[in-house]
Amino acid sequence: MGNRIITISREFGSGGRTIGRSAAEKLGIACYDSELIEKIAEKSGLAHDYIADKGEYTAHSHWLANAFAASRSINGMSTQDYLWTVQRKVILELAEHESCVIVGRCADFILTDKADCLKVFVHASLAKRAERIVGVYGQRDESPEKRLLEKDKRRREYYRFYTDTEWGKAQNYHVCLDSGELGIERCAEIVAALY
Amino acid sequence: MGNRIITISREFGSGGRTIGRSAAEKLGIACYDSELIEKIAEKSGLAHDYIADKGEYTAHSHWLANAFAASRSINGMSTQDYLWTVQRKVILELAEHESCVIVGRCADFILTDKADCLKVFVHASLAKRAERIVGVYGQRDESPEKRLLEKDKRRREYYRFYTDTEWGKAQNYHVCLDSGELGIERCAEIVAALY
Repeated sequence: MGNRIITISREFGSGGRTIGRSAAEKLGIACYDSELIEKIAEKSGLAHDYIADKGEYTAHSHWLANAFAASRSINGMSTQDYLWTVQRKVILELAEHESCVIVGRCADFILTDKADCLKVFVHASLAKRAERIVGVYGQRDESPEKRLLEKDKRRREYYRFYTDTEWGKAQNYHVCLDSGELGIERCAEIVAALY
Repeated sequence: MGNRIITISREFGSGGRTIGRSAAEKLGIACYDSELIEKIAEKSGLAHDYIADKGEYTAHSHWLANAFAASRSINGMSTQDYLWTVQRKVILELAEHESCVIVGRCADFILTDKADCLKVFVHASLAKRAERIVGVYGQRDESPEKRLLEKDKRRREYYRFYTDTEWGKAQNYHVCLDSGELGIERCAEIVAALY
């Protein structure tokens, strides 16, 4: 296939999505983030909220216990495993179909050896991310730092469970960027220039 | 201090030193790599070879056993701990004195909160690094892959022992680059542009 894909893995609150959108705009290609959820919802029949949460995160607690106790089962799989297979299929089809940016959802792992990928990881300090999520999503009862640490943990565990590799290990990406120090627009420029 | 420092941490064989030299040249600043060894030798009285090997690597095997059994002792410290303290001092003085690139020797950790740093980590796949070290250092009896895995392990352990943080974890650097995929000159351009 002649398509070139950029995958953006990112810490919650690091602005990875914004970087993906901005890089895609500069390059004149599509960026799939919430659009990916649309496509997965269409194909799977699962609810948007479920996909947004469970397509990148383990359950809140006792992930393994939850997996075993999953009361719903689709085609003999737990709902989360079913979501994983649909998500994987949608990402593979996208990469087959067009050059684009794909944000999150283990696309870097799914497309390994299957597409010409530029694999990007975006991160930032807890303080910078806390500031950013309060600005973007507003205050909650829980402190932003606590929300971030919980999100990080669930995302890391999800990634490890489905890919058996480590999320955020430099060696798994072509370029890793600290968006808090370098700035979001600067990161988007680097990503677009490396394409 | 008004100096700006680039620290380059790198996997053995990834071309991090060449990237550091090239970026420094573009920026018209000095790059300290073997020059660092000179300075440390001058200050410590230790041999060049000892500094080159033990200033970034744990001993070949049984690192802790070796540490406890260290027969030589300088100012009540093991030789390796003495080397660490001199190395640390030399790096702090350099950063105080001029803007420059410093390759390896945990400079990223040593200068945290002490200088205005751009922290870079350079890595590449085992295959690309193996090809590179055979080209640069020639064939040895041991396979290049085995040499690399041993070097990686000893460097990772040294870093963990003296810094208590993880070598090659994306979150510890401002930018991480896969020199095998992006190319050495491209990496040097990115580093210089981010300065």
